[in-house]
Amino acid sequence: MTEPFFTFDDELDLRFERIVDIKPELVWAAWTQPEHLVHWFTPAPWKTIACEIDLRPGGIFRTVMQSPEGQEFPGTGCYLDVVENERFVWTSALGPGFRPNAPEPDAMFFTAMISIEPDGDGTKYTAVAIHRSKEDRKKHEDMGFEHGWGKALEQLVEYMKSV
Amino acid sequence: MTEPFFTFDDELDLRFERIVDIKPELVWAAWTQPEHLVHWFTPAPWKTIACEIDLRPGGIFRTVMQSPEGQEFPGTGCYLDVVENERFVWTSALGPGFRPNAPEPDAMFFTAMISIEPDGDGTKYTAVAIHRSKEDRKKHEDMGFEHGWGKALEQLVEYMKSV
Repeated sequence: MTEPFFTFDDELDLRFERIVDIKPELVWAAWTQPEHLVHWFTPAPWKTIACEIDLRPGGIFRTVMQSPEGQEFPGTGCYLDVVENERFVWTSALGPGFRPNAPEPDAMFFTAMISIEPDGDGTKYTAVAIHRSKEDRKKHEDMGFEHGWGKALEQLVEYMKSV
Repeated sequence: MTEPFFTFDDELDLRFERIVDIKPELVWAAWTQPEHLVHWFTPAPWKTIACEIDLRPGGIFRTVMQSPEGQEFPGTGCYLDVVENERFVWTSALGPGFRPNAPEPDAMFFTAMISIEPDGDGTKYTAVAIHRSKEDRKKHEDMGFEHGWGKALEQLVEYMKSV
């Protein structure tokens, strides 16, 4: 895995790595096509009820998550770097057109990098969450980063095997 | 001028346009090489006493400005989009490696786009500052956006004619 534009910082960043048994192209499709993403993005019983993707630097990445109680959590970020079937980066600190986002109360901005590469008949999947502070890293960890991304990835694999 | 990834918003953004009588390549060099940038970036009697540039998406754009009283104002952002001799975009909302920046008290994040194109023997120069809110736009305007960017550009032209 190449990380050409940033250095992983153990004190600030979180990393999630797995090998999954579907091809990189299927992982890519699951992450980059709204009609796929809504099926797996949020660990059940949460739902993703809307998704908008403009897959290019400066393009929008918007989702609306819904809690089991029906409360909606919209989030709008933008893509920063896209290399098809290899890697993409987006951030919650900027919206479409690279416009700075206004922080919500207690919000935690982060930049995420998803990297995929072939691994036998499957895919090595790496997700990195990049934070501005140790506090934000801890907040993200305490929110259940490892478990949440793991469950979402399991849903992704199961869903993509079914389509 | 093409603005492929964002739409100018009169309520949120500021635009500065001028025609200058040096070639686009000289304007580009002035903005992208630290040894040039320190000579013109800050309207006198302020000074730019340090500059670091890694001109690629995710690369650092760091300056240290110094007030006439000797107080230093460091700023670290990152580039988002670079098209040589045409356009570059950077933001103060992210640092190198696309890492979200921690806001300073009363800080105002913005994304800036500098576009240049040939205009006869000179250059049409456009700077756009992109804000998250009307309040940040007004704060930037009140800080003297138009005057400051104008004076810096005059310094840029004068300096580049001398090198």
